[in-house]
Amino acid sequence: MISKRMESLVDNNSVIRQMFEEGKKMAEEFGADKVYDFSLGNPNVPAPSKVKDTIERLLSEEDPVILHGYMANAGFPDVRAKVADSLNKRFDTAFTADNVIMTVGAAGGLNCALKALLDPGDEVLSFAPYFVEYRNYVANYDGVLKEVAPDTETFQPDLKAFEEAVTPKTRALIINNPNNPSGVIYPESTIKAIADILEKKQKEFGSEIFIISDEPYRELVYTGASVPYISKYYANTIVGYSFSKTLSLPGERIGYLVIPSEAADHERLFQAVTIANRVLGFVNAPSLMQKVAAECIDEKADIGFYARNRDVLYDALKEYGFSYIKPEGAFYMFIKSPVPDEKEFVAEAKKERILVVPGSSFACPGFVRLSYCVSYETCVNSLPGFKKLSEKYGL
Amino acid sequence: MISKRMESLVDNNSVIRQMFEEGKKMAEEFGADKVYDFSLGNPNVPAPSKVKDTIERLLSEEDPVILHGYMANAGFPDVRAKVADSLNKRFDTAFTADNVIMTVGAAGGLNCALKALLDPGDEVLSFAPYFVEYRNYVANYDGVLKEVAPDTETFQPDLKAFEEAVTPKTRALIINNPNNPSGVIYPESTIKAIADILEKKQKEFGSEIFIISDEPYRELVYTGASVPYISKYYANTIVGYSFSKTLSLPGERIGYLVIPSEAADHERLFQAVTIANRVLGFVNAPSLMQKVAAECIDEKADIGFYARNRDVLYDALKEYGFSYIKPEGAFYMFIKSPVPDEKEFVAEAKKERILVVPGSSFACPGFVRLSYCVSYETCVNSLPGFKKLSEKYGL
Repeated sequence: MISKRMESLVDNNSVIRQMFEEGKKMAEEFGADKVYDFSLGNPNVPAPSKVKDTIERLLSEEDPVILHGYMANAGFPDVRAKVADSLNKRFDTAFTADNVIMTVGAAGGLNCALKALLDPGDEVLSFAPYFVEYRNYVANYDGVLKEVAPDTETFQPDLKAFEEAVTPKTRALIINNPNNPSGVIYPESTIKAIADILEKKQKEFGSEIFIISDEPYRELVYTGASVPYISKYYANTIVGYSFSKTLSLPGERIGYLVIPSEAADHERLFQAVTIANRVLGFVNAPSLMQKVAAECIDEKADIGFYARNRDVLYDALKEYGFSYIKPEGAFYMFIKSPVPDEKEFVAEAKKERILVVPGSSFACPGFVRLSYCVSYETCVNSLPGFKKLSEKYGL
Repeated sequence: MISKRMESLVDNNSVIRQMFEEGKKMAEEFGADKVYDFSLGNPNVPAPSKVKDTIERLLSEEDPVILHGYMANAGFPDVRAKVADSLNKRFDTAFTADNVIMTVGAAGGLNCALKALLDPGDEVLSFAPYFVEYRNYVANYDGVLKEVAPDTETFQPDLKAFEEAVTPKTRALIINNPNNPSGVIYPESTIKAIADILEKKQKEFGSEIFIISDEPYRELVYTGASVPYISKYYANTIVGYSFSKTLSLPGERIGYLVIPSEAADHERLFQAVTIANRVLGFVNAPSLMQKVAAECIDEKADIGFYARNRDVLYDALKEYGFSYIKPEGAFYMFIKSPVPDEKEFVAEAKKERILVVPGSSFACPGFVRLSYCVSYETCVNSLPGFKKLSEKYGL
């Protein structure tokens, strides 16, 4: 009945989303405080109070016909200018409103970028582990996602394997920095090396290869490490951003794309992405939230909250003998499964009412992802369950 | 540089959107009160005051983590239940939350429905004149939009031509009732006749053919005419709705799809559409506006405002000798061009600072669309320009 392309998507519905639904059911059955749901990246920190204040002010001061109305498909010009100014201030860039397209979250933005770039059969690379939806986004436009195998010691990109994976059909590389699910940050040296490889390959193949940088976690950094702004290292860049995590507004679907003027055929590309925003049915990013995001662009959710969760989990799980890299950013930990088939471990954890996501959902089996954007109590109260799991597996 | 599929879209960028941009530039040059921009369906009526009140109340009373957070991809269950209840009360249907998916406007909803239904080469029918984006939406999923030629006397569907156009490859018919751009309403007898033809063809071809009913203008009816609720006449129905026009929230991108339980393989189809919502990057309809729409579901924008515009334009343009059908619904008039090439007429109108959209954008050349969701003053002040045009063409 449904389209053939959707058949397998329905049969293999997102494990993450299934767990989200399952977690809600378990919460009803056992009580919300007895279920330790680390499955979804749904921030548990409330939006900064300025979000509420700004909405109330906009409702009082602005003409509702404009506030809730259509604007150019790329977004309100003043909002785009504010985004550009904020980036320039922080990263010493020289963007204007003409480099910014407001989008329905980063997911919407990535789809617009891929629609604008991909022809059937085009290849898009990504470093495993990567956010599982990238594969679906690329497939939407009949592209093929090719993964570069993970270095499971460091979770940094394997640059040799990357260089070998670039072909004349390569149209883009999607990176996610800080990384979901590993929590690592790719440092400047890595970004420079990636840029060098792509420059070389572009010359070799006479092609244009884009880095699409998915950056919803840019502000969630615990270590003082800096996250390089990709367009400063490589011209053919499209940066996708979402306010979901920084302003704790994931349900509002507000983000933006940056297309630097140095990108090949910038104006036409900008126009293509803007038209993709329209024809894919987004039309424009939600209007009120565009204005809110612009006003709150220098606000941040309380990262101390996530840092505390990270620390309590890190210390305890280390003591229990679990193996993983201490995350530098985002709000995920990627833990080595005590058994080769991590789905078995996920099932055992569920018996302790602990919900984690199998690494195979991130093209990295043998690991599980734990999202610690939950309450501190959830973290603390989950520890006995983790301890039992550790004992069970003799860690 | 950009994908081949996007090349022609960029080269033939939406005439409507181009005029929107041009209108804004003309307003800067001549002053907003000297430009009569009838190009875009951007409601000029402010949202009902309950929208503002509801947002303020939700901000005070609701937990921001829930109000702005992720929920199931189909939307908040309580919102979906309220939509179902409202429909049941008004149309004597029996929907539940399991029949409703909240979407990023009707445009987002239609894309999800088409993604769920179409395989490459599948055919989708629509009656000309139709909203030009349907062609792009269908092409997004490698379907082919086939138009049924217009009956330019009545602008009602040509049922004989329709029956002949249905083939074994036909997967859906998109209808828009009340119609953009003609403003006509398809009455119950027409809906019944369409349903009969499709039932017959489904049996003949052993196929499932869906009516996708795009209904953003459902509440904008001037004549007391009733707009039939399609699922009561035909099982394989998907209704797309947007609050853009009724609540004057077009920029907020909030709407829903209804998939009745009688539709073939309902559960799997519902799941496929929900997954399409996720993988296309919408993820979910904007969360705050979901709650607002549910609370304001029985509110309506002031239709008297549009009725007054309709009347003043109707009376004057009739007097000037223009030829068209008096619209029964929506906020569009579809006027016969005084010259065969309506683009010439559009250009002449622009000299009077009157912006209208050529009918070729709706697969119906020889006509122009006029959106009267503008201020009353715009309508009144445009009349001398229309009079001059009438004199110029000797009407």
